[in-house]
Amino acid sequence: MTKKAVILLSGGLDSTTTLAIASHQGYNCFALTFRYGQRHETELDCARAIATHFEVQDHVIANIDLRAFGGSALTGDLAVPKNRNETEISDGIPITYVPARNTIFLSFALAYAESLNARDIFIGVNAIDYSGYPDCRPEYIASFQHMANLATKAGVEGDPFAIHTPLIDLTKADIIKRGIALGVDYSMTCTCYDPDSKGQSCGQCDACQLRLRGFEQIGQKDPVTYQVSK
Amino acid sequence: MTKKAVILLSGGLDSTTTLAIASHQGYNCFALTFRYGQRHETELDCARAIATHFEVQDHVIANIDLRAFGGSALTGDLAVPKNRNETEISDGIPITYVPARNTIFLSFALAYAESLNARDIFIGVNAIDYSGYPDCRPEYIASFQHMANLATKAGVEGDPFAIHTPLIDLTKADIIKRGIALGVDYSMTCTCYDPDSKGQSCGQCDACQLRLRGFEQIGQKDPVTYQVSK
Repeated sequence: MTKKAVILLSGGLDSTTTLAIASHQGYNCFALTFRYGQRHETELDCARAIATHFEVQDHVIANIDLRAFGGSALTGDLAVPKNRNETEISDGIPITYVPARNTIFLSFALAYAESLNARDIFIGVNAIDYSGYPDCRPEYIASFQHMANLATKAGVEGDPFAIHTPLIDLTKADIIKRGIALGVDYSMTCTCYDPDSKGQSCGQCDACQLRLRGFEQIGQKDPVTYQVSK
Repeated sequence: MTKKAVILLSGGLDSTTTLAIASHQGYNCFALTFRYGQRHETELDCARAIATHFEVQDHVIANIDLRAFGGSALTGDLAVPKNRNETEISDGIPITYVPARNTIFLSFALAYAESLNARDIFIGVNAIDYSGYPDCRPEYIASFQHMANLATKAGVEGDPFAIHTPLIDLTKADIIKRGIALGVDYSMTCTCYDPDSKGQSCGQCDACQLRLRGFEQIGQKDPVTYQVSK
């Protein structure tokens, strides 16, 4: 029987590549996306289209309200920083940090996985481009996996969970190369922290900048439409 | 300045006693309750009344949907077991186990605490009466705390979180004695897994049985109203 896996799918470049990798590895994929008080619905539309494209077994969009806790440009009223250079992007913990976000996401993935009787969870975290986020580091992921196997019936009964992070030590360029090799259509993905009402990417926030640089480094044109043509 | 703490408050006997303890220890308390697809709203009403009674600084009721994942009598369509004896209650992982529930609750508490700039989180888990739940054990809590300090900006910056479990090694009778000494009015609390439409407790589920036995052991009458008078 095909092994089941839960894939955290935001609709962005990294999580879409992660889904492509899990699918290529032969997992029966179940996608999990969150409506968590994002500024925009664009990424949910992307996630739906991508889940359909990859013919996942099921796609759950879970409603959670991180806005109740404030604390970040991605969920609150803080301005998303624009046009920062590489040093500024990688320096310290960014304003777009959402307290405990990956911990909340992985906790739901764990609940979903245990209820499906799946033991494999995929998350597209990356310790290189997002070095400022504490919950994108390998030591954090290892610690979450250890905790998960103490927290759950399956873990305690000796049938442990594994948290897979296939992108963790790849550069953005490597991720894109990997995805292209697997046939990912990156025009379907949404990366921008601050798209306009038509869902077009700003091209200026940290996420857009890292993405554009990744495509540039491999000599490819990013297929998404930007507000100002790049 | 008074130290802030986040208290997970379900409206039950254990979490109410935990709030009383945190309050008695002088913390500035912020209560966090979840609407997670429970069968009934009774416990949310209890939580609101208790939070008001203890004059917490703020009380957040966060909506999360654990029903999307199925898997337990507390959120799904499985029957709540009734009239089990002590051996049956303590034997193995019960049907009322909700996959990763405390992990999800603690993850939200962590997000809330970091956004408040609080470093103390209180949860009323108990390893004696609920020995069947993997996520009520001290080793699980220690592991969550370790993970939390790798996951967060505060943890990484050397200002770590502490997960407090003041009830973890107390019997139900000890918990009630402690609460009574602190002036807790247990008539405000809701323990039952399966109350009727008036919010009256069944007196027969595991939670009611453990509670009734606790009051009996200290020679007190439980002040809540049961469907069949006890």
